[in-house]
Amino acid sequence: MIPLPVHAVVREVGLRDGLQSLETVLPTARKCAWIAAAFAAGQREIEVGSFVPARLLPQLADTAEVLAYAKTLPGLVATVLVPNLKGAERALECGADLLLLPLSASHAHSLANLRKTPDEVVAEMARIRAARDASGKKTLIEGGVGTAFGCTLQGAVKPAEVLRLMMALLDAGADRVSLADTVGYANPRAVAELFEQAIQLAGERFCCGHFHDTRGLALANVYAALQVGVTRFDASLAGIGGCPHAPGASGNAATEDLAFMLAACGVDTGLDIPALLALRAQVVGWLQGEPTHGALWRAGLPTTAPAFA
Amino acid sequence: MIPLPVHAVVREVGLRDGLQSLETVLPTARKCAWIAAAFAAGQREIEVGSFVPARLLPQLADTAEVLAYAKTLPGLVATVLVPNLKGAERALECGADLLLLPLSASHAHSLANLRKTPDEVVAEMARIRAARDASGKKTLIEGGVGTAFGCTLQGAVKPAEVLRLMMALLDAGADRVSLADTVGYANPRAVAELFEQAIQLAGERFCCGHFHDTRGLALANVYAALQVGVTRFDASLAGIGGCPHAPGASGNAATEDLAFMLAACGVDTGLDIPALLALRAQVVGWLQGEPTHGALWRAGLPTTAPAFA
Repeated sequence: MIPLPVHAVVREVGLRDGLQSLETVLPTARKCAWIAAAFAAGQREIEVGSFVPARLLPQLADTAEVLAYAKTLPGLVATVLVPNLKGAERALECGADLLLLPLSASHAHSLANLRKTPDEVVAEMARIRAARDASGKKTLIEGGVGTAFGCTLQGAVKPAEVLRLMMALLDAGADRVSLADTVGYANPRAVAELFEQAIQLAGERFCCGHFHDTRGLALANVYAALQVGVTRFDASLAGIGGCPHAPGASGNAATEDLAFMLAACGVDTGLDIPALLALRAQVVGWLQGEPTHGALWRAGLPTTAPAFA
Repeated sequence: MIPLPVHAVVREVGLRDGLQSLETVLPTARKCAWIAAAFAAGQREIEVGSFVPARLLPQLADTAEVLAYAKTLPGLVATVLVPNLKGAERALECGADLLLLPLSASHAHSLANLRKTPDEVVAEMARIRAARDASGKKTLIEGGVGTAFGCTLQGAVKPAEVLRLMMALLDAGADRVSLADTVGYANPRAVAELFEQAIQLAGERFCCGHFHDTRGLALANVYAALQVGVTRFDASLAGIGGCPHAPGASGNAATEDLAFMLAACGVDTGLDIPALLALRAQVVGWLQGEPTHGALWRAGLPTTAPAFA
């Protein structure tokens, strides 16, 4: 009755979006163990870190080593976030499979987070594309438009501006684009409306939705996006994450809860949910005292079940 | 693009479904203060308690007094849950506006919770209808079919059986019927499918969806039900609640989060969300040490806003 995609991808961003907002600096070996276990549980797309100066994000200072490990896993799309050309050059040198350049559609958030206007980030995308092409590397380039549903600093962000910037990133050379509700302002109706327009404009180059659960709507927003044809979602194990410029932000959609919702809805993800729950317990043990989230770990899987593993 | 109802009702069940699962026995005066503040915040349908033996649920032993207070508020639909004819007779004597008879579509859950088979509950509905008609009271009768998406005790519950029992309740004399995901086994796709069939069968006599957030999907499930035309949802302030036969159940959809989602989606509820958040803080203060839930209270309303009050 409700047509939903047959398959969807849960892209793990806990090692980047999650860890960057926590005080704990996870040792490289633990990050690699996390990636290995996530891979074993069926995850094939993992954002392993960010090429930003270590003084800004010491939690991600070992991104090159973590990326080198991730590249040893066959078929894993190892992704890194880069804030600018310099980060992109490191991502290319290190052979990332995908680099993600974030752009904030909110002018105020863009200046606070990246010290650039949104259109200056578009210009950076063009330089990154030129660097990629010059490098001969196969690294894919994704432009991620954040604060797509509003911003704690600026307030409203116009959908037309979000879509303009999304298309500008493609025109500047991004291979694909995604939209993010960085601060948890989205609602399912707004998601359905904006994502449907995004897909109409970008077609198959529209690749992913990224939702924070700040106000409890992350999974409802995913469901709304699924209904308009989005088939890739960012999520972080145990829902870790936040945003330094979004006070009270409670983290990303939880990987394990999202995997459960998709499986329960009959959308295949290839994920082994009991294995994800076991990994969650391990990672939460490494993050003593840090805020973690999610519901499934407490309640467990239903005794009725389609195949959850 | 996505057609949603223009209006929806958030029916407060925290005073019954919430409090019955907590150890704290809230004094009558506090229950009345809760009801007064919920009314002031725009709530017009409140389940104020349950006519069950006080030895089973001492938390709800003052239901008659609480109901008497609720009836003083003009335009408030004061609802009580009753497990059987005896409880219904008290509800009629006390002049409840609505009485809700729960039925578990799961045979095992029905025996554990009500010590009757589902069809014995249908027979009880017929006796309750006869008692109502004989009483000359205007009390409405709702039959609520629980464990509609499965059961921790029995496992799977067939949708056809859920719908058969729902129609049997109407045939036995219920004025209206509702469906409940008592143990948090629902998912948005299953909700859309079952609720659409329920509305096709029961028409305007289908009145409400009741979702537990055990696995984090309550609001996604509400959104799916909204899309097929459901316009009334049970919820409890601070998401309190659970089920004695559903280990790990984490409570109902949180009233304040649901009100936020609906308002954000442009669905009018008549609710003053800042007033609900203030009431939540007061009630949580009364429930020191008890598990409470929800996300909006922590993050606050977006600075961008349609009218949330």
